[in-house]
Amino acid sequence: MNKIVIHFATGNGHKVKEAKMVLEPFNIDLTWKKTVLEEIQSDSLEEIAIHSLKRGNFGPWTIVEDTGLFIEELNGFPGPYSSYVVKTLGNEGILKLLRESTSRKAYFKSIIALLLPNKEIKMFEGKTLGVIAREIRSPETGWGFDPIFIPDEGNGKTYSEMGKEKNEISHRAKAFKNLGLWLKNEFNNRNRT
Amino acid sequence: MNKIVIHFATGNGHKVKEAKMVLEPFNIDLTWKKTVLEEIQSDSLEEIAIHSLKRGNFGPWTIVEDTGLFIEELNGFPGPYSSYVVKTLGNEGILKLLRESTSRKAYFKSIIALLLPNKEIKMFEGKTLGVIAREIRSPETGWGFDPIFIPDEGNGKTYSEMGKEKNEISHRAKAFKNLGLWLKNEFNNRNRT
Repeated sequence: MNKIVIHFATGNGHKVKEAKMVLEPFNIDLTWKKTVLEEIQSDSLEEIAIHSLKRGNFGPWTIVEDTGLFIEELNGFPGPYSSYVVKTLGNEGILKLLRESTSRKAYFKSIIALLLPNKEIKMFEGKTLGVIAREIRSPETGWGFDPIFIPDEGNGKTYSEMGKEKNEISHRAKAFKNLGLWLKNEFNNRNRT
Repeated sequence: MNKIVIHFATGNGHKVKEAKMVLEPFNIDLTWKKTVLEEIQSDSLEEIAIHSLKRGNFGPWTIVEDTGLFIEELNGFPGPYSSYVVKTLGNEGILKLLRESTSRKAYFKSIIALLLPNKEIKMFEGKTLGVIAREIRSPETGWGFDPIFIPDEGNGKTYSEMGKEKNEISHRAKAFKNLGLWLKNEFNNRNRT
């Protein structure tokens, strides 16, 4: 079976690194198409990803990925605006907003949109439930909201306190695994026919 | 002189009402083109407005307007994402974020983008400096962040506590006055030649 090549359109090198590790076992080669994506304002990650993919004038087998942290007590904030909120309020801001909250439930969601040769778009999702920590932990090893997100599956550690284990349970890893499984199956079928 | 007709593309009826009042003395007739605009994620109101105007397939003399509240201590947050932040965090969220802050300085900025018959885009700006109140005031008469914004020019009242006086000093009123002045001058010159 030939190696499958997928192009990841993103400006974020962290994401590429994480995705490469997940896709490797599927015999998928991920190339980084370094791009500034056009992202619309929307509550829906799906809508944002589809828009970015369509507007980018990309070739087939290109993916874009969008992630959001959705905090229950804050009506889903910061949602799709995570990178802006990291930059302005930071993790400190999120902790302030939740100081008197009884629930700290949150989830991370990742959406991948893949452009097929027939111009159709196929979507993949990954979601990880968890809670927001009461303090910032290990900020030096995590980016974004990693230092304050404790996944339910993570033995009480924040994303930033995990090593490679993060890639077993993270929202993005799940989305990329779904992509990997689908691609593997798809290419196996193609080679058979 | 003929009445000048301008089309305001927006989904927000509040904005149309405010703008009509400001443009009336300039003999400008404002029609509401009720639309859901495509808005991109950007730190720049100018970039968002230009994008929305270009993507909308509008005729000449159409305007779009975008507004942001920029809070100094929060690195400009919520900026262009004001409507999302009103919906999720609300005014309570902003007060929480500023609870221990020494500075409460903020400004409201409004940007209008006008599509000219030659397809060029002309921009108008209005800005009002102020501070964030320590409590929510008169929420029933104001929308958005009006109940927590005290303009420096407003005798200590929040936007929501003002009646028509808001239209003397508000960021949006200033932007629409700039638009009105320019249009009046432009049409006078056209009629003369």
